[in-house]
Amino acid sequence: MAKIYLGIDLGGTEVKLAVVDAYGNILEHASFQNSFNSVPEEVVAEIVRFSRNMKHFSEVSATGVGVAGDIDQQKGVVRFSPNLPRWKNTPLKKLLERELPGIISIDNDANAAAWGAYWLDAKGKVRNLICVTLGTGVGGGIICDGKLYRGATGTAGEIGHIPLNPDGPRCNCGSFGCIERYVGAAHLSSQAKELLKTRKHSKILTLSGGDPDAITPYILARAAESNDTIAINIWKTAGRQLGIVFAGIINFFNPEMIVLAGGVSKAGKLILDPIKETVRERAFEKPASICKIVISKYTQKLGVVGAAFLSR
Amino acid sequence: MAKIYLGIDLGGTEVKLAVVDAYGNILEHASFQNSFNSVPEEVVAEIVRFSRNMKHFSEVSATGVGVAGDIDQQKGVVRFSPNLPRWKNTPLKKLLERELPGIISIDNDANAAAWGAYWLDAKGKVRNLICVTLGTGVGGGIICDGKLYRGATGTAGEIGHIPLNPDGPRCNCGSFGCIERYVGAAHLSSQAKELLKTRKHSKILTLSGGDPDAITPYILARAAESNDTIAINIWKTAGRQLGIVFAGIINFFNPEMIVLAGGVSKAGKLILDPIKETVRERAFEKPASICKIVISKYTQKLGVVGAAFLSR
Repeated sequence: MAKIYLGIDLGGTEVKLAVVDAYGNILEHASFQNSFNSVPEEVVAEIVRFSRNMKHFSEVSATGVGVAGDIDQQKGVVRFSPNLPRWKNTPLKKLLERELPGIISIDNDANAAAWGAYWLDAKGKVRNLICVTLGTGVGGGIICDGKLYRGATGTAGEIGHIPLNPDGPRCNCGSFGCIERYVGAAHLSSQAKELLKTRKHSKILTLSGGDPDAITPYILARAAESNDTIAINIWKTAGRQLGIVFAGIINFFNPEMIVLAGGVSKAGKLILDPIKETVRERAFEKPASICKIVISKYTQKLGVVGAAFLSR
Repeated sequence: MAKIYLGIDLGGTEVKLAVVDAYGNILEHASFQNSFNSVPEEVVAEIVRFSRNMKHFSEVSATGVGVAGDIDQQKGVVRFSPNLPRWKNTPLKKLLERELPGIISIDNDANAAAWGAYWLDAKGKVRNLICVTLGTGVGGGIICDGKLYRGATGTAGEIGHIPLNPDGPRCNCGSFGCIERYVGAAHLSSQAKELLKTRKHSKILTLSGGDPDAITPYILARAAESNDTIAINIWKTAGRQLGIVFAGIINFFNPEMIVLAGGVSKAGKLILDPIKETVRERAFEKPASICKIVISKYTQKLGVVGAAFLSR
C-alpha cells in the first residue's frame, strides 16, 4: 500500500496541516491560527488534536514539520523563531513523538518548501534545484544531488542575504544592500510610495484607495497589468535585481532549476521575464541555458507537502 | 597495501605529474612544458612517456587528470580549453586508457584543486568546503557533503563570476562587475598603476624597477610588507571585496571551510585579515562563526594531488 504522510507548516500566524499521499496529493487538510505569543505546549496540543481528527490519521506513516525559525534538524529542536519569541530551544520532535505515530522530522519552513518544490514542480526529476521564497522576506532552500542541503549549521539557502549592492542600504540582518532589501514585499511597496510622491495620478493609488501605506505587491501587480508605468518599472527593476543575483548563483551552483514561490512570485511574468532576460545577459551561457527558472504552480501547497515528505 | 595514484595537472603552460600515496604525499614528480598550440596526441604521448619513467609506475592503481578547460567528466572529454585551442572535444580519457593502467578520471583543474584542498587542508574532515583559486582568473570548486560537486553542466564553482557590483566594469565573461574583475592578478596590478599616476614615490615602483607595467601581485605584497600605503590599501580593498562575496556564499551555502589557493593568495594575512573582518561584519553570525577561512598550505600540490585523488 502506498504510504501516507502528515505535513505541518508551522508559521507565525497560521499552522497548516495536511495528509498527503506519496504523489503529493493532499487528501485532507486543516489549519488554525497561531500568534506571536503562542506557547509551544499549547500549539503542540492543538496540532495533536487536529491531527487525530483527520480521517486518515491511523494510516499516517511519518510526520514532518516545517517551522519558521532556526532549527536543529538532527535533534528536532526549534532553536528560536523571530516571530514566535516563546519558542526557544523547544524540543518539538520530542513533544510530538509522544503523541503522533512514526518518524517525526523537523526542518526550517524554507527548506520544507524547497523540498516541496523539488517533488511538485520538478517531480523529483532534477538533481540540483534552488527554491526562492519571495514574500516579506526573501528565503530559500537548496536541493543538492537530489537531497535537501542544509549546510554546516542548517542555515544554508539564505538567498535573501546575498549582496546585490554592497554599498546599498542597511538590511535587517545587519549587512548592507542584500537582495531582500530591494525585493522584499515591504521594500517594493515603499519604492512605489516614494515614486508616487512626484506623480499623483496612478492606478496604484486608485487600487490602494488613495492610501500610499496600503500599497501591496498584489496591488502593484494589478496596476502593472493595467499598464501603470510606475508599477511596470518596479517589477522590471525587481526582476533585474533578482536576475543579477541568480546569474551569480547559476555561475556558482549550476542548478537545473530555480523555482520561485511566495506571495510576491504571484506577479508572474511581470517579474519572471526581466529575471530571465538578465540571467541570459549576465550568467555563463551553458549553465544559464539549461537552468529552468519557473514560478511554482503549487505555492500554497509547497510548505505542507514538503514537510510531509521530509521523512520520505 | 596502501594504494598509489598518478595525478596530472594539465595546464596551458605546464603539465605536472606526480605519484601520490593514499595520504597525499608526493612520492615522485615530473613536469614538462605545454604550449598554446600543443596537439593533444603529442601531449598524451609525453604524459605516457613521463608516467612510464616513474619508479612507482607499476604500482599505480588509478590516474586522475585536472585540465584547465571545460570538461565532460562523465565521458572524460575536454570540450574546449581557452588556453589550448587545439583541444576541442578531445577524448582524453580514451586516449589515456590505452596507455595507462586502472581507472582514468578527468576533471576541471579548479575542481581537482578543490578536491586536493579537501584532502590536504581539511584532511577530509569537513562536509562542505569551497576552494577559491586566486590568480590571473578567480576560479573555484565546491565540496558538498564530502563529494566534489559539479552542478548540472559541470560548470559549478565559478566564484570569480559572482557579481560584486552589478554596475561595475565589464568582465571578460560578458557580464559586469564580477569579483574577478576586481581581484584578478592583472586588475590588482592595474589598480596600482592607476594609483601611482598621482604619487611617484612608492616602494611598488622601486620593486618593479620603475616600470609600472612590471607590477605583479608578488611586488604588491612585498611593498605592503614594507609599509607602502598604496600597496596596503590595494590588499585591504581586495580583501574587503572578496569578503563581501564570501559573506553571500556563507549565507547561501553555509560551508565549514573556505580555502584560498593560487598565486595571489600568497599575500597571506594582507588579504586574509580584511576578508575575515568583512565576513564578520556582513555574514549571518552562526554560519560565519563556524566557517574557517584559510590560505592553503599546499598551493603547489593541490592540483596534482587533487587530480590523483579523483578516482579515490
